[in-house]
Amino acid sequence: MKRHFLSLCGGVGGSKLADGLARHLSPDELTIAVNTGDDFDHLGLRICPDIDTVLYMLAGLVSRERGWGREDESWTTHKTLQALGAPSWFQLGDKDIALHLYRNQLLSSGRSLSEAIAAIAAGLGVRHAPVPVTDAATPTTIDTADGELAFQDYFVRLRADVRVDGIRYGGTDATKLSEGLEAALANPALSGIIIAPSNPFISIEPMLATGRLRERIAGAEIPVVLVSPYVNGAAVKGPVERIQRDLGLPPGDAGVLRHYDGLIDVFFTDTAVHEAGAGVDVELGETLMRDAEGRAALAGRILRRLGWQR
Amino acid sequence: MKRHFLSLCGGVGGSKLADGLARHLSPDELTIAVNTGDDFDHLGLRICPDIDTVLYMLAGLVSRERGWGREDESWTTHKTLQALGAPSWFQLGDKDIALHLYRNQLLSSGRSLSEAIAAIAAGLGVRHAPVPVTDAATPTTIDTADGELAFQDYFVRLRADVRVDGIRYGGTDATKLSEGLEAALANPALSGIIIAPSNPFISIEPMLATGRLRERIAGAEIPVVLVSPYVNGAAVKGPVERIQRDLGLPPGDAGVLRHYDGLIDVFFTDTAVHEAGAGVDVELGETLMRDAEGRAALAGRILRRLGWQR
Repeated sequence: MKRHFLSLCGGVGGSKLADGLARHLSPDELTIAVNTGDDFDHLGLRICPDIDTVLYMLAGLVSRERGWGREDESWTTHKTLQALGAPSWFQLGDKDIALHLYRNQLLSSGRSLSEAIAAIAAGLGVRHAPVPVTDAATPTTIDTADGELAFQDYFVRLRADVRVDGIRYGGTDATKLSEGLEAALANPALSGIIIAPSNPFISIEPMLATGRLRERIAGAEIPVVLVSPYVNGAAVKGPVERIQRDLGLPPGDAGVLRHYDGLIDVFFTDTAVHEAGAGVDVELGETLMRDAEGRAALAGRILRRLGWQR
Repeated sequence: MKRHFLSLCGGVGGSKLADGLARHLSPDELTIAVNTGDDFDHLGLRICPDIDTVLYMLAGLVSRERGWGREDESWTTHKTLQALGAPSWFQLGDKDIALHLYRNQLLSSGRSLSEAIAAIAAGLGVRHAPVPVTDAATPTTIDTADGELAFQDYFVRLRADVRVDGIRYGGTDATKLSEGLEAALANPALSGIIIAPSNPFISIEPMLATGRLRERIAGAEIPVVLVSPYVNGAAVKGPVERIQRDLGLPPGDAGVLRHYDGLIDVFFTDTAVHEAGAGVDVELGETLMRDAEGRAALAGRILRRLGWQR
């Protein structure tokens, strides 16, 4: 029987694992569901940072240096926006703008976000088209001592250099999951759910908080794998360490495991874990994905642990 | 007393005369009202071909070769859109896209078209900010034997190479004129209305058909100057000759004068006119505006004819 796997992912780390999984699985064996909590409007365009990073990674176009946007970009439009005095704190390269305009055309002609992403993926030659966790707008809001911040205000403009008092997710129990994600959850061949090494609080939790996804995963008889966002005890990227401290969680893997308490069956990490929690198997080994080979290797280990063989 | 002048204009020819007038008059002496009948949505962006041509001309940025868009453009986004399979029959250069994204940001944050144009003009350093004839959407539709065509379908996609059975204008008697145009019409110093050498049927008439502008101009005691769109008996640019033929009007200036019957006091043309009509004075002389000097020269002749002196 063909097996099916579902990956939940955010941007940079998530896109790498998604790419690794796509190197083993055919498009009908893999659903890549992506966070939309970072999405926002800029210049009247819908910006989907995590989805686009996944698309560019899968298309082999992602900028290695930046980790987001496209390789070999030019910045003519961005510089012209600056000269005009238009909002330009969020950078979009000229090629990246083409993707945004295509999405703008599709959305403004009534297509759903899922349909827009499918069309863009086809245009980029991406066979494993990702799906958004939902077609609805589910913006994450960060609570700070100085009031609430829209997510990209916190993340890009303030570079996450602010104490986080709380995080509120745009998705609710009533938010409809995307058709693609629903199809994966309903797939009788679903053999594993793989949570990517993305930030648990700002990339994965916005998904789990949407449409009762956390409860549905916890209640399903499907093994759930988590890849630690920590490598050698330090975050590869982003503010996960600071957020854990601000939210009063223990540092490193311990805090991550406490956050995912009750959800995880297998934990992939490169650092010994003393108290993984009841019913959590720890798989020790390399989790840093340096290149395509590293992405495929980690994905292969995860899939084999889930009983998959080529 | 300071005098005030109102110019009605379309794109290429209109922008040239607007530039000439702006070389003589201060911003508070001149209102440049621009056609919005060509406006349409492309890639989810509002495209305002005539307004943008006027803006770029006044900013000294208009492409000499194309007559629209900016000089020294690059086409990275356009090429990337083509590679993605996105709609790309209407070309936007990378710098031009910055203007469109700024307008998209302004309109999507609730600004009117007039406000958006004022902000963009400021960003371009344009002192004589043009005003749209109206902030409302007033799309022109072309009737053909094969059915109706959206204006840019007719004008750009089909290169106006089709028989025109009729032209329908988006503006109605009830359409509200823009505040800037209303202010000019209400200005007690208004000393002349100058209709640019733009296509009478697709650039000027959409304005006159909006908010009873034709009746208001005809009923006002203000001299109306028209510059012929013909030079040496031939159209400088665009489908004016074919439209006159298709609509059953006489060719050349005679057809233009018949179209504007009852509205015009002074007619600037370079070709002898036999029957200008009752009450129309003909001013013979060079009307082709080859360069900045030519634009200023024609504008100066018109303004002097209207009693203006520096």
